[in-house]
Amino acid sequence: MSDQINEFRAYRSKMNERILSADNLVIKRLFNLDTNTYAEGALPTRTKEMLGLVSSMVLRCDDCVKYHLEKCHEQGISTPEVLEVFAVANIVGGTIVIPHTRRAMEYWDELQKNT
Amino acid sequence: MSDQINEFRAYRSKMNERILSADNLVIKRLFNLDTNTYAEGALPTRTKEMLGLVSSMVLRCDDCVKYHLEKCHEQGISTPEVLEVFAVANIVGGTIVIPHTRRAMEYWDELQKNT
Amino acid sequence: MSDQINEFRAYRSKMNERILSADNLVIKRLFNLDTNTYAEGALPTRTKEMLGLVSSMVLRCDDCVKYHLEKCHEQGISTPEVLEVFAVANIVGGTIVIPHTRRAMEYWDELQKNT
Amino acid sequence: MSDQINEFRAYRSKMNERILSADNLVIKRLFNLDTNTYAEGALPTRTKEMLGLVSSMVLRCDDCVKYHLEKCHEQGISTPEVLEVFAVANIVGGTIVIPHTRRAMEYWDELQKNT
Amino acid sequence: MSDQINEFRAYRSKMNERILSADNLVIKRLFNLDTNTYAEGALPTRTKEMLGLVSSMVLRCDDCVKYHLEKCHEQGISTPEVLEVFAVANIVGGTIVIPHTRRAMEYWDELQKNT
Amino acid sequence: MSDQINEFRAYRSKMNERILSADNLVIKRLFNLDTNTYAEGALPTRTKEMLGLVSSMVLRCDDCVKYHLEKCHEQGISTPEVLEVFAVANIVGGTIVIPHTRRAMEYWDELQKNT
Repeated sequence: MSDQINEFRAYRSKMNERILSADNLVIKRLFNLDTNTYAEGALPTRTKEMLGLVSSMVLRCDDCVKYHLEKCHEQGISTPEVLEVFAVANIVGGTIVIPHTRRAMEYWDELQKNT
Repeated sequence: MSDQINEFRAYRSKMNERILSADNLVIKRLFNLDTNTYAEGALPTRTKEMLGLVSSMVLRCDDCVKYHLEKCHEQGISTPEVLEVFAVANIVGGTIVIPHTRRAMEYWDELQKNT
Repeated sequence: MSDQINEFRAYRSKMNERILSADNLVIKRLFNLDTNTYAEGALPTRTKEMLGLVSSMVLRCDDCVKYHLEKCHEQGISTPEVLEVFAVANIVGGTIVIPHTRRAMEYWDELQKNT
Repeated sequence: MSDQINEFRAYRSKMNERILSADNLVIKRLFNLDTNTYAEGALPTRTKEMLGLVSSMVLRCDDCVKYHLEKCHEQGISTPEVLEVFAVANIVGGTIVIPHTRRAMEYWDELQKNT
Repeated sequence: MSDQINEFRAYRSKMNERILSADNLVIKRLFNLDTNTYAEGALPTRTKEMLGLVSSMVLRCDDCVKYHLEKCHEQGISTPEVLEVFAVANIVGGTIVIPHTRRAMEYWDELQKNT
Repeated sequence: MSDQINEFRAYRSKMNERILSADNLVIKRLFNLDTNTYAEGALPTRTKEMLGLVSSMVLRCDDCVKYHLEKCHEQGISTPEVLEVFAVANIVGGTIVIPHTRRAMEYWDELQKNT
């Protein structure tokens, strides 16, 4: 597993646990609801994870992008498909999305190597 | 056809024509590229239009939302599916997306009535 | 009651009902959670409503601003206090917040007249 | 003078006066500073107004766009120049800037007619 | 004092000094005005710092969040109170605020250790 | 050449090549169009690069800011001129632009040393 992937996962787990331990009911429910959002429904999880990815890209949140790239990878989404999600994000969100696309591409490549 | 739908389409067409008549090459190519982005590819147009819709919602652009709702409607996307796109947008983008969801729901309902 | 206040409330109620009738579980829970967020807790509702107002202003969501102005009004927040919330929003968010401040000021004045 | 131009100016003046009458020192100073920002300096006002315009477009603030279009018009900026500002805004900010470009184009055309 | 706190403060001071040394009048006045914004007024500094914190979170500016966390810490705001500010930010701004909440929580914990 | 400048350029080149190698037509054309946007036209490249810089600042994209600072440096823009671009960005975009201004100032100073 690459360093970048491990570091992202470890920090994310550690701090999510810390936040949840603080016992704020609204935050706990939001974290819960976040998980439910991507469950199978009228749309398959596979499609919803791409929706989460493109939203994270246009809002330019690198950590959210990494998280949804992991989920897209788990869902068996192919590299040409991921590139088309990147394309929508770059057209809708403009060239300010490009630096985030560079980091997303790098993270995606690392996920591919670590299957 | 409802007034809201007609007005949106008429203003959009009129002003797009006006902008293109100004003959700025970069803008003309961007408009062109925008159309290509949603063409069938590794992902079907149907999925891409939902990607366009969710991006427009989290970026809170009502006119972009209307445009992609029309395209989703043409692609035969169902109301429960559209609601799940709305759900992703509201969770990722927060409660500031709610007012845009109200206007999106209204526009979607008008599109359904006008099939 | 002023027309602007009535129209905002009527449209908001009508469309919230419509959205909730669509029975998407994630959206229903988010609407619920939204209400809980501003309940008395470690911080009083009064403070939380100002937090909601300033967040809505820097994110430039006019309908969210109106909603929180109503809540601030119910909480007995004074005009000089509201102006200080506006000031924080304008300094943090910049002059692009000014047009939203104009509409917020107008709505606040209407709320005062309708006590 | 077109209705759209008159309405924008009248509402802007009326509400700016109302806000300033509330006598919040931070807001008053920010309004003042805003005016100073575009004064002749190392860069001419002409350039600074285009900087204000492009910033307003990528941040998608229609009223800010109108304001800077008026200033650009006063500075004798030509239509092909304004279109190139629009082009930068659309490329940097993406297709979500297009609906704002439609309204900007319309306002610019009205300003031209009213010279 | 933790490394993270020291580094943040040192870089912030060094670069603020450098920027102010460049003697741009608008920037100098804005820095000044920024300080005035949080002074005691109709609202206490304590409340205003929470307004600054929540605004920084929904706008997803990590450095601004750190700065206001320091000020909230100085104002004696408790951990449950800070968590309620985080809750408002996450509900209003959505799950894209979560990664910023992780970093905010970590910084807050370090501030607590260094009292 | 400073480490920061070298690292930025190396990573940017490497990942742009990687993205282009993936052969997504929309992304390739957008990259191309991005270059054309800043070509001499009704407005000189010099002005357009300042438009790109101010847009990147208000949208708070550090990598985009670095890129346009390099281009502004190549165009012979002076430090007082760059500071006035920073001033417009800070007034329009608010104090959340300040942390990005700190990093921009540092990068600009490094570019000056490396002429």
